[in-house]
This record gives sequence, structure tokens and C-alpha cells, in this order.
Amino acid sequence: MQVIAPRWKAALEKALAAHPKETVTQLASIDPSTPVPHVRSIIFRSFVEPEGNPSRPLLLATTDVRTPKTAQMIANPHVQLVWWMDGSQEQYRISGTASIVPAPGQSLHKNFTHSLRTPQGTKFDWEAKRLEVFRNMSPFMKASWCRPVPGSRLEGGQEEARKWPVRLEEPKPGDEEGKRLWEMSLANFALVVIEPHDVDYVELGIVPNRRTRFWRKDGGWDEEELVP
Amino acid sequence: MQVIAPRWKAALEKALAAHPKETVTQLASIDPSTPVPHVRSIIFRSFVEPEGNPSRPLLLATTDVRTPKTAQMIANPHVQLVWWMDGSQEQYRISGTASIVPAPGQSLHKNFTHSLRTPQGTKFDWEAKRLEVFRNMSPFMKASWCRPVPGSRLEGGQEEARKWPVRLEEPKPGDEEGKRLWEMSLANFALVVIEPHDVDYVELGIVPNRRTRFWRKDGGWDEEELVP
Repeated sequence: MQVIAPRWKAALEKALAAHPKETVTQLASIDPSTPVPHVRSIIFRSFVEPEGNPSRPLLLATTDVRTPKTAQMIANPHVQLVWWMDGSQEQYRISGTASIVPAPGQSLHKNFTHSLRTPQGTKFDWEAKRLEVFRNMSPFMKASWCRPVPGSRLEGGQEEARKWPVRLEEPKPGDEEGKRLWEMSLANFALVVIEPHDVDYVELGIVPNRRTRFWRKDGGWDEEELVP
Repeated sequence: MQVIAPRWKAALEKALAAHPKETVTQLASIDPSTPVPHVRSIIFRSFVEPEGNPSRPLLLATTDVRTPKTAQMIANPHVQLVWWMDGSQEQYRISGTASIVPAPGQSLHKNFTHSLRTPQGTKFDWEAKRLEVFRNMSPFMKASWCRPVPGSRLEGGQEEARKWPVRLEEPKPGDEEGKRLWEMSLANFALVVIEPHDVDYVELGIVPNRRTRFWRKDGGWDEEELVP
């Protein structure tokens, strides 16, 4: 069993180190009730290896738990992420399964079954991870999770929208309104965890162009060269 | 009936004029045989209004007709295109139906049923459009359609790949090898035509953020403000 980090991850990390602002990726999912694909931009936050196993890296992103994509990914966890890295002229297409990690009190939490063993044999503490990622989000992002349901009709128009908080900082003791907003934001904040099983890596910045497919096999990763 | 260009198109054209290099978009499709979404980067080439009706703009992209996405889109024409415009901090999610316009001699051509009336009452000449777009492609792109089937196993490895043409120019009279490659490229070249019916437009560059949904209705476009 190959327990080293897959080569596609090393390539992605190298490209990200050279172009650290290129964290916008696109995530496709299927709403099982209609034959229509859905795709939206999401920000890649980091890799996480909850098992301490470098051959099994998970990708972390975040979302408002009230968006349609969370219900789509709970109903059909098959997703594909595409990452066009303009600076290096590379495309990564990452097929895998997605899990949503909502707040423990959120009604969708019952659908979260991702349980992983840490190297110490204990279970990975996903709620601690969620809180850690939340704290590192910008005040602007934190404020965005205090709005009405994303994608719902904007009642009251722009006049109403101007009342939404723009920045949200951790509340000081006694700041009741700040505390209410902080808790609302944290309750709507969820992690999106993607476990990759197949990666299509295209390098357009070199001649001849290269394309490599990687897939999980026997606990490690296998690879094959494809025609670009 | 509103026969003016939809407002989302004007916004997109304004963003493109300010950031003309941001033509990379991501196209999601579904392979009806598996419950797995597919998404890849494609280059937006232009709008086309074959009916001369500004309220019905189609989006043009190109592909190698041998890629899996052409079969996917023929089997299930529902697609979603997502376009993150970094320079203007805008996202356009365009839902619609896709058609493939292959070479007339290509076996997939029988699936191409898109027939539109021009303002003169004649049929739109899609093959003329395909040839026009092909001529405007770079010599590098033209050469890319002379490779073995995209996504197939690379037989012969990089040694074989180094034999592929890198640039392809229109052949001079008597250049038999150039003529053979030109014809191969043109035979593999196809248009991807997307007819939008629903557009989700998010503006993250302004405070408060804005989100607008547009959808085709009664031959024109209706719109509604949503919560971002």
C-alpha cells in the first residue's frame, strides 16, 4: 500500500504556492429530482488528513448550510470539482464524494456520517475543525451567513439589503446583538468535505501538453498517461 | 414581447470588455448512465444571434467532437455554465440546453437538429459558422485536434506525444501532409452552442452584494432580485 501523498496533490500544492490567489474552483453536483447539472464557484480552503494518512487527503471548502447544494450533495454525494489554475495553465478535475459538516444543532447534521479514526485511534473532531475554519474566515464572509436564506426572493429590495451586517467580528462581552449575529453565522456555517477518488490532471503550459489520470486503488493511488 | 438584449448579457459584455482575458468558463453536464456530474473548463468564444433576435443570444464554445462531453450533451442536453469573472467579482450561472455542431460528415451530425430562421427567412448556415470559428482559432488549438482521441490511453508515451504537430497553419498548395492534418483537424472540430434559459447573476464587488435571477418568459426575459 502506497501511503505517500498522491502526485496530483504535490502538483496542486506547487501551483498554489506559485499562485496563492487562485483558490476559486467550481463544484458540480446533481439534484436527483431533475436531470440538470448544477455548478458554482467555491473557494478551496485547505487539505485535511484526519486519519493522518497522506495518501487520503480530503479537500475543504465552506458553505451556508441553507444553500441548495447541501441538500443536493446529501441526496447524491457524487461531485466533480474543476480547478483551472490560470497561472500554471493546469486543469485539475477531481471526482469524489462530498460530505456536509453543519453545526451540531442543525437539522441536516443527522445526515453527516463521516467518521474517521485519527492516528491515536480516537475519532476525528469535525466540530472542532468547523470552529477552527470559521474563526479563520474574514469578517465579510462571517457577515454573509447572517442574511436571509441564500437564493430566496429578496423581500424589501435593496433597502432591506442595506441593513445586513457587512463585517462580523467576535462579539465583546455584553454585545448582545453581536452575540446574536455571531451565533446565527456559526449556525449557518458548514464545511464541505470532498474525498477525491479520481483526478484528471491536464498540463497545458508545456509542449507537448500532458494529461494524467490518477485513481485510488488498494489504499494508494494509481496513474496513467492520457491523450490531452 | 421584449426583443431587446437581456440585462445579464449587457452586464457580461461590460465585464468582458473590462477584463477581456477572462474567457475561461466551466461547463457541467450529466452522463445519463451514471449519477455523477461532469464539469470542465471551456473557452467562451462569442455570442451568436442566428435569428437576428437580440433577446435570444446563444453562447458559442468549441470542442473536439471525440471528447466524452459531446456524447453526454447529445444524450442529455441540459447543461449549466458557471463563469467566475475575477476582475469584476461577478459570477454568472447560465442554465440552458447545449447542441453540438460537428462536421457535416461526422457520424454525430445526425444528432444536430438546431435549425433557426434568419431574419431573411432562410435557415442559419451552421456549417459556415463552424468554418468561420475554426479559421479564427490559433494554430496551437488547430494542431490540438490532430491528436489521438482525447482522454484515451497515451500509447507510446511522451516519445509518441513529441511527434504531434504543435502549430497548424492553412496548407499551401502541394503540401499534402499539411492538407491531411488540416482536414483531420477540421473533421474533429465542433461548435458547442448553448441556449440559455435561466441565469443566476451574483455581484460580489459591491456592498451590499447583489443577486439577480433572469429567466426566459414569453419570448423575452423576466428578472427577480434574490438574496446573495
